[in-house]
Amino acid sequence: MSDHPLPTKPLVVKVGGSAGINYDLVCDDAAALVRQGVPLVLVHGGSHETNVLSERLGKPPRMLTSPQGFTSRYTDAETLDIFAMVYAGKLNTRIVERLQRRGVNAVGLSGLDGRLLEGPRKSSVRAVIDGRQVLVRDDYTGKVERVNTHLLRLLMDNGYTPVISPPACSTEGEAINVDGDRAAAMIAAAIGAEQLIILSNVPGLLRAFPDESTLISHIRYAELESALSFAEGRMKKKVLGASEAIAGGVRQVIFADARIPQPITNAMQGRGTVIAL
Amino acid sequence: MSDHPLPTKPLVVKVGGSAGINYDLVCDDAAALVRQGVPLVLVHGGSHETNVLSERLGKPPRMLTSPQGFTSRYTDAETLDIFAMVYAGKLNTRIVERLQRRGVNAVGLSGLDGRLLEGPRKSSVRAVIDGRQVLVRDDYTGKVERVNTHLLRLLMDNGYTPVISPPACSTEGEAINVDGDRAAAMIAAAIGAEQLIILSNVPGLLRAFPDESTLISHIRYAELESALSFAEGRMKKKVLGASEAIAGGVRQVIFADARIPQPITNAMQGRGTVIAL
Repeated sequence: MSDHPLPTKPLVVKVGGSAGINYDLVCDDAAALVRQGVPLVLVHGGSHETNVLSERLGKPPRMLTSPQGFTSRYTDAETLDIFAMVYAGKLNTRIVERLQRRGVNAVGLSGLDGRLLEGPRKSSVRAVIDGRQVLVRDDYTGKVERVNTHLLRLLMDNGYTPVISPPACSTEGEAINVDGDRAAAMIAAAIGAEQLIILSNVPGLLRAFPDESTLISHIRYAELESALSFAEGRMKKKVLGASEAIAGGVRQVIFADARIPQPITNAMQGRGTVIAL
Repeated sequence: MSDHPLPTKPLVVKVGGSAGINYDLVCDDAAALVRQGVPLVLVHGGSHETNVLSERLGKPPRMLTSPQGFTSRYTDAETLDIFAMVYAGKLNTRIVERLQRRGVNAVGLSGLDGRLLEGPRKSSVRAVIDGRQVLVRDDYTGKVERVNTHLLRLLMDNGYTPVISPPACSTEGEAINVDGDRAAAMIAAAIGAEQLIILSNVPGLLRAFPDESTLISHIRYAELESALSFAEGRMKKKVLGASEAIAGGVRQVIFADARIPQPITNAMQGRGTVIAL
């Protein structure tokens, strides 16, 4: 018997898209867990590579900041093409390849596939530019409200490991940019995952970013709202995702480091920031 | 009763990736057929867009010509990334989106997903450069020899319409570039399709390319070898694919025009070049 019995419930792992993330280490660990019988769903990001490709194509990324301080990518139709090329094209294909090379029968899916991740497109996005609030209307952005668990169960019950990325599918069937952390939270809640692990290029939630010695090891659900005040940039969305996952019945959300060996196993054992009721 | 009863056997449609192809017309027709209960598999290319993106990224496409006169894309690791971005990223996502907007529950797959399209990677490729034969060794290229019909049937039996593109999966699990027409032929044979329709930006096989008045309306399997002599460039691979599909039990292969309304329905009714035993 191990001190850390493996879950029989599905495990959802979100791996970020920031610079410095080691996908080989993540896939080594994911493959070992799948071999041990863990029903795993991998969700991935791609923000850094999207920025790089946008620059190379002469379409520099533009970020929108909401009045509440949340940032999101301004995603017009051309940006959505670039986004899909990086997320659903290069990164998803290369992660599926890494898993196939490690003996895992992975299947890559975007949120459009089988309407896996569905929700309304925002008719307009409120943003602060130069201190003034403006409405942006040609943005293909939305929020996941429904997960096609039928498709996920169909694949998992037949030995396939889903590897999922945005874009998602609007109610009208359009490709829309959605936040990957919050999409992972919706997936974890929808399939009844016990744990949601959110890996990035920091060891967890830091009280004073970027000082890694200020890592918060445990935080309760009730304290998450106050965590929004010191969570930096992209971490704000992860906090929001954690909150939504736990409200949706996920027992633990763990923010952990994707730059180290066995990043998933370490996180499952509580290394990082553990969030629970 | 219609003069052209719809097939109960699955129908495989390959739509090319050359300039001028109208994906909206193809998806209108595909959606109408799916609504009528036709079990449809859509396979797509992306050569033109891959060339465009390669140029924009400062990595101009290089084509290899075999001693037999077949051309293929020189696909080193960086080219494969570009290839995956266009095929599995932008084009697959946008075709799935078109079908979702038309009420078809499409699922996009590359050949890596569930090892859908599997075959050996060539250890080296023989090519003619400046009249001399050379061996190219860093090419990620291969040929589909096995189709994961389990995954296709699983999806189709549950109401999903597969939208498939290269890359494929090497025996070792690597992403490899494979010819889309021949991949479609392997899929059609593997799932027992009655018809394989290969749509491109010409009305069919032309005896004197590009003179469209020289369209060949029927050609027998036994005559295909001689057709290789006048088939231009990309059409050579389509002829090879047609030959492989019919050898694999597909009753009819039809080369037809993707630039017109109802391109699939027209092809099913014999408009184009019909190839049969």
